[in-house]
Amino acid sequence: MEENCGVFGLFSADKQVVKDIYYGIFKLQHRGQRYCGIATYSSADIHIITHKGFVRHTFTEEDLHLLKGAVGIGHVSLKDRQPVILISRMGKFAIAFSGNILNSIKLRNQLKNEGHSFSSETDIELLGKLISYEKDFLNGMIRLSEKVKGAYSIVMLTKDGIYAARDPYGFKPLILGKKDGSLAVSSESRAFDILGMEILRDVEPGEIIFISKKGLNTLTKIKNSQPAFCAFEWAYTASIDSVIEGIPVIRARENFGKKLAEKDKNMSADLVAPVPFSGIGCALGYHHSSGIPYEEVFLIDRFASRSYTPLTQESRDEEARIKLSVIKENVRGKKIVLCDDSIVRGTQIQFKVMELKNAGAKEVHVRIACPPLVAPCFYGISTRSYRELAAKKFSVDGIRERIGADSLKYNTLDDFIDAIGLHKDHLCLSCFTGKRVEER
Amino acid sequence: MEENCGVFGLFSADKQVVKDIYYGIFKLQHRGQRYCGIATYSSADIHIITHKGFVRHTFTEEDLHLLKGAVGIGHVSLKDRQPVILISRMGKFAIAFSGNILNSIKLRNQLKNEGHSFSSETDIELLGKLISYEKDFLNGMIRLSEKVKGAYSIVMLTKDGIYAARDPYGFKPLILGKKDGSLAVSSESRAFDILGMEILRDVEPGEIIFISKKGLNTLTKIKNSQPAFCAFEWAYTASIDSVIEGIPVIRARENFGKKLAEKDKNMSADLVAPVPFSGIGCALGYHHSSGIPYEEVFLIDRFASRSYTPLTQESRDEEARIKLSVIKENVRGKKIVLCDDSIVRGTQIQFKVMELKNAGAKEVHVRIACPPLVAPCFYGISTRSYRELAAKKFSVDGIRERIGADSLKYNTLDDFIDAIGLHKDHLCLSCFTGKRVEER
Amino acid sequence: MEENCGVFGLFSADKQVVKDIYYGIFKLQHRGQRYCGIATYSSADIHIITHKGFVRHTFTEEDLHLLKGAVGIGHVSLKDRQPVILISRMGKFAIAFSGNILNSIKLRNQLKNEGHSFSSETDIELLGKLISYEKDFLNGMIRLSEKVKGAYSIVMLTKDGIYAARDPYGFKPLILGKKDGSLAVSSESRAFDILGMEILRDVEPGEIIFISKKGLNTLTKIKNSQPAFCAFEWAYTASIDSVIEGIPVIRARENFGKKLAEKDKNMSADLVAPVPFSGIGCALGYHHSSGIPYEEVFLIDRFASRSYTPLTQESRDEEARIKLSVIKENVRGKKIVLCDDSIVRGTQIQFKVMELKNAGAKEVHVRIACPPLVAPCFYGISTRSYRELAAKKFSVDGIRERIGADSLKYNTLDDFIDAIGLHKDHLCLSCFTGKRVEER
Amino acid sequence: MEENCGVFGLFSADKQVVKDIYYGIFKLQHRGQRYCGIATYSSADIHIITHKGFVRHTFTEEDLHLLKGAVGIGHVSLKDRQPVILISRMGKFAIAFSGNILNSIKLRNQLKNEGHSFSSETDIELLGKLISYEKDFLNGMIRLSEKVKGAYSIVMLTKDGIYAARDPYGFKPLILGKKDGSLAVSSESRAFDILGMEILRDVEPGEIIFISKKGLNTLTKIKNSQPAFCAFEWAYTASIDSVIEGIPVIRARENFGKKLAEKDKNMSADLVAPVPFSGIGCALGYHHSSGIPYEEVFLIDRFASRSYTPLTQESRDEEARIKLSVIKENVRGKKIVLCDDSIVRGTQIQFKVMELKNAGAKEVHVRIACPPLVAPCFYGISTRSYRELAAKKFSVDGIRERIGADSLKYNTLDDFIDAIGLHKDHLCLSCFTGKRVEER
Repeated sequence: MEENCGVFGLFSADKQVVKDIYYGIFKLQHRGQRYCGIATYSSADIHIITHKGFVRHTFTEEDLHLLKGAVGIGHVSLKDRQPVILISRMGKFAIAFSGNILNSIKLRNQLKNEGHSFSSETDIELLGKLISYEKDFLNGMIRLSEKVKGAYSIVMLTKDGIYAARDPYGFKPLILGKKDGSLAVSSESRAFDILGMEILRDVEPGEIIFISKKGLNTLTKIKNSQPAFCAFEWAYTASIDSVIEGIPVIRARENFGKKLAEKDKNMSADLVAPVPFSGIGCALGYHHSSGIPYEEVFLIDRFASRSYTPLTQESRDEEARIKLSVIKENVRGKKIVLCDDSIVRGTQIQFKVMELKNAGAKEVHVRIACPPLVAPCFYGISTRSYRELAAKKFSVDGIRERIGADSLKYNTLDDFIDAIGLHKDHLCLSCFTGKRVEER
Repeated sequence: MEENCGVFGLFSADKQVVKDIYYGIFKLQHRGQRYCGIATYSSADIHIITHKGFVRHTFTEEDLHLLKGAVGIGHVSLKDRQPVILISRMGKFAIAFSGNILNSIKLRNQLKNEGHSFSSETDIELLGKLISYEKDFLNGMIRLSEKVKGAYSIVMLTKDGIYAARDPYGFKPLILGKKDGSLAVSSESRAFDILGMEILRDVEPGEIIFISKKGLNTLTKIKNSQPAFCAFEWAYTASIDSVIEGIPVIRARENFGKKLAEKDKNMSADLVAPVPFSGIGCALGYHHSSGIPYEEVFLIDRFASRSYTPLTQESRDEEARIKLSVIKENVRGKKIVLCDDSIVRGTQIQFKVMELKNAGAKEVHVRIACPPLVAPCFYGISTRSYRELAAKKFSVDGIRERIGADSLKYNTLDDFIDAIGLHKDHLCLSCFTGKRVEER
Repeated sequence: MEENCGVFGLFSADKQVVKDIYYGIFKLQHRGQRYCGIATYSSADIHIITHKGFVRHTFTEEDLHLLKGAVGIGHVSLKDRQPVILISRMGKFAIAFSGNILNSIKLRNQLKNEGHSFSSETDIELLGKLISYEKDFLNGMIRLSEKVKGAYSIVMLTKDGIYAARDPYGFKPLILGKKDGSLAVSSESRAFDILGMEILRDVEPGEIIFISKKGLNTLTKIKNSQPAFCAFEWAYTASIDSVIEGIPVIRARENFGKKLAEKDKNMSADLVAPVPFSGIGCALGYHHSSGIPYEEVFLIDRFASRSYTPLTQESRDEEARIKLSVIKENVRGKKIVLCDDSIVRGTQIQFKVMELKNAGAKEVHVRIACPPLVAPCFYGISTRSYRELAAKKFSVDGIRERIGADSLKYNTLDDFIDAIGLHKDHLCLSCFTGKRVEER
Repeated sequence: MEENCGVFGLFSADKQVVKDIYYGIFKLQHRGQRYCGIATYSSADIHIITHKGFVRHTFTEEDLHLLKGAVGIGHVSLKDRQPVILISRMGKFAIAFSGNILNSIKLRNQLKNEGHSFSSETDIELLGKLISYEKDFLNGMIRLSEKVKGAYSIVMLTKDGIYAARDPYGFKPLILGKKDGSLAVSSESRAFDILGMEILRDVEPGEIIFISKKGLNTLTKIKNSQPAFCAFEWAYTASIDSVIEGIPVIRARENFGKKLAEKDKNMSADLVAPVPFSGIGCALGYHHSSGIPYEEVFLIDRFASRSYTPLTQESRDEEARIKLSVIKENVRGKKIVLCDDSIVRGTQIQFKVMELKNAGAKEVHVRIACPPLVAPCFYGISTRSYRELAAKKFSVDGIRERIGADSLKYNTLDDFIDAIGLHKDHLCLSCFTGKRVEER
């Protein structure tokens, strides 16, 4: 399953921000691993550097030296280089976003028909041009909510400060942090931890905020029906040390495991173990609830990461294979409960079960935090298609047989929702229900 | 004196063009040495690669492999990366130009005020956006002639073929070539020689042409008063193996030397020698007319070129110093006529005279192809300013004294015009007269 | 604590080995992270490519294509590029080693005094030159055991096959693997797992082996008193999925935790957690023995790795800080048993305790797998010095106070040895006892 | 025809030398274009940086900053990276040379049989090891003259100063320069010009000198029969602004042309022109003697140089084709005397004649400075083989016909020797006579 993007912005009253932005986007790297970029403002100009590759591999000391300023934004991405620069009647600005625009072709054509031209085919240039079309930044961002269909969390750097906005459904997270004179906005709260900042609050769905020397300002709040927070953030996308809408991700993940253990009253395994990293929270929760000893059966290779994310599914499977070793000594002759977050195609969990069996495991019982995935992401955030979803093609027992497990259980949708702890009408659950949020 | 840009376009009925475009822009490298780029069209898409550095240092075999197509354009530049891509209602196109836009700020503001935004501050993006503003490419290019003040020779690659245009005054050269099924357009004819192509004719001032599978087509010709061909092309900018408006550059350059020799009836020097490369044609012409033996006194270093053009005047002076050696054996005890193209600040010729004197020259008589430079280029093509022009600050004898020459003569404006052989009302002579072309 | 080096060699009857060597040294990367290299033999020549950086970041597809052959060796290192090539009377060969030569200055001077000269100041060139000094490879390797003081595990690629040798004490591990027609030698067995190879046996201390188309051959075995296997391999250096001298590393590590738990009968903590990665085995063992729930309190950042290992202690501390996040939700209000492998200076564990306390931990009880470190490594394998050893300067309670823990316990030396399960006279325990192996 | 190498060394009493060494080897670049390198001595260590590529393209400001010291050596080469470092009983030193060792295999085997081993297969490492074999540098260099057969001019950097030596025949040039407190040694005198240094004298054949804070010292002078200065240096290899053995290269080159003109009393051509760069001196001499006007018919492309020298003959021919343009205007309808230095295979001059004819030349009369080449270089300095020599396969008229010239004349050997002006028994003329210097 592919991730998406991460955004970060930081305003400081009086100190250079680039090093903190660097650490901030580094802590969002799990949200997008192919490109990264930082833009700062100083001396009446916007400075920008973007790279292909990881934050820690690509930004040099010289880059950080060049990116001067007490305010700036950063981005990590799987798709394209961001932030991008635009020069409009409001001046020069930099913009970056996390999300996906569903009606981009139509919007782009409308502008072209009025004589506009584009330098790229990216959503982010489109967003920038839609904003530039209006007479000021606020109106530009308000128009977005009227015209753009899809999910977006935006940060925008101008000479006066940082604008940030979240789409009216609030699909993708966006959270505010503070420390002394500094204010930050981020896709995830963990970026605040490394900077010694505290969570202030989540940006609300539809809210447009402005961070400047006058502090934090809510410029407006677009009316919406009900929020639709992406449930997959707690299950997979976000990092376990982040807090989204007040719910610590680790709490949701351990709850997924607890719910699974509660249905396994008679399980008498030797050990419970995760598929790292995605199954760790679930395995810990299962262990705590069941009392079955926790053990590591896979070792993640610290040095497996490449400087790029492979493009083909074959290469990604190969990477998955390379990066985990089996700790045979812990597996031989054992009855194992193996926890993971979700099953898309089933090929990776199949390979993991096979490796455990090859290493001498007596039994492998697979437990999955998410309910079966029955639909692709209607909001284009994940790239999985109907065609590849195991749960669309096979029964649970059919999947169990294909992956070679001795048993297989998923959480029910109700247990899954309970584990997160938010009302089901405030979550986007489309990939588990097959219904769009408008149909809830 | 800085050069400007060079453009090239090639349409072939049936063969890959990239290698020929590569050689074409390589032969225009003297017109711009900081950036180079090629765009081709194939498989319903435009492919583009640009580099910082020289054509021969930066384009790799892999680049040439990726740039597939039977039609394409190329560019060399001192200022910015070209071609650039734009995506408009007419589709995706690539555009490049040679010249300078005088009213770019005003034009850019007009677009911004209508809600347009830019990805860069370059003239070439502005030209692309002005064209995109209209409903088809031809109208786009016609509008340019109405709105844009300045000099421009444009090539534009679309899915249907290549558009090319020259501003109504025809300041900068643009010439057509052909061979079998191929048609080319280039800043200079020498690019045709390396490809075995023949000169077809110059693109006329104000002419907009289209090269496609239907061959060469003049789409329209903007009305103009009289052409104003930049006289400096024959004197300095163009290469001596090019032909502009029917006048071989070497013929004009040797004529400059002949005119100077005719005024030096009593000169009894041991030898006549050029400041390479700019003074070679003039020195040859002087030698042929006077009968004084030709000799080399400076040796140009074949390996002096760096992979970039230095940014500061100091570095450029240093480069000038490094790249020439004195051949002392040919200088010691000699009375020398030293020819060069023009004097801007006078520092380089001063240094050359000093080197010859240090090597033991008995006398050094400096002869200059151009009349004194009394004004900066009003069309922004060269970067020299009033302030640095030696001829604005000193008399001819004052300059002679400063450069340490035993005598100094320039061509008169009349001799200079005669040497070129075009009517004076068809030339831009502003830098020698201080009058704009409108004031001719 | 710095690691050292890893060696790998592979002989295949009939297939290209480079991809397997690549995966082999990738799985040894934890043993040395600054340089890597591969040499293969084919077409009567040795091909070699070395890089600065990680195996996965530096070796390209083209590199792997160039390294042809059915036999080859590889290396990862913290100190210098290996393998190196030498050309001697026996022909061209490539050599690499893991270890440290104590009398290298003396040996180098002896050769210099006979008129030899060196191209570098590395131990590996010295070893290669000592071997070249003799009339054949076997005699060369035998002489090493007589002349060289120190620890070494060597692999050497010649036109006939691979020589491998382990010093008479067997300080550093070296193990043999096999699969069908292939034979491999490696610093650790985990490199075999990824290749689907099986452990054959450890190379014995003082043994010199030769792997060729005739299979595996013990050429000779240097007499030695008793082996002195580096105990630190089980405690820290080796990976937990490797097996050394028949002892699975994970077994030893979990035993360290069990021994600690057995002394903590009255411990009533909420959870036991590791300092990742070094404390994981110990924490699991403590959890299994005590029944106290296992929990993660630190999250390791998957993207923290840089493309190089920082040179200064300050940078390394910074890296340590960056790469771990605290999972606050799991820490707040909790009484925690925190396990790690060893304490050198105490600064890292101090920082970890502080972070847990800052995140709201009620109590932190530190448990350390190794006994106190009282001496530097006499064999130069680790770089720690007397001066920096916390246990040389402070009592256990003094250290506890400095690191801010509520309690601190180490394993006793006897428990530590019991946990490994080998006879104490077969281990090098110098860093815990302060006695050289000759003094055992 | 391929060139060889160039060496440079500079000792200054009190200032940093790296910038001057950089300019020095830049001015020797025509002697070797694939690799370059500089070594300096300071703070009790030797610093060295070598590159693949041209001096001006590869050395960075940072490189020059790192190469500290008031003494150093530099090198340009076609074959391998030099200087190289060796560490021997005399300490660490850097060594570089210009030339070719004929008995290197035998010498290398002698050392191998005594137990020595090499890190490369280069002549320069062999020279360094032969010197290291002795007990001090002087004895090491004396031994070279006894053992080494071939041509060599050596510079060697030690902690005490620079050693330099020229083989007993003095095949390759080596010259001393001075300025204030500085002393330099160089393959050619032109390197002194750029540094404002004066020629002191040539190093004599067989002379071993030492440059240190005590100044210049002749340590010894190996006895030799008679010098054998490579005549090809004046004809082709050296730059026309250098002086070798007191003979300015431009004087010899112009004399070659004068000798040719004296045999052409009835020549009534329109113009005399060179094949640049190699034929320039000859054409100027022909012009001065005959009175026939000098003209340029080929234009050398300033931007043709690539960052590497092509490896295949085909690529080199392509490069030759690319880098010259015909100035058609000067060629059409003209009777041309075309001068070049020598004919090896005849393919390049054939191509040049064809280009002139294609551009409309009425007649092309080729005049060659050197006598026919009848043998390869016995001293391995040039790479031409018997097989490719046109003069071995065809009569002069046969060659004329093949190259398409209207007439073809070479200088006679006597005229060639007279033009240089040294006694024939002091020159190596083997490639024109087919006799080794021992057979003179």
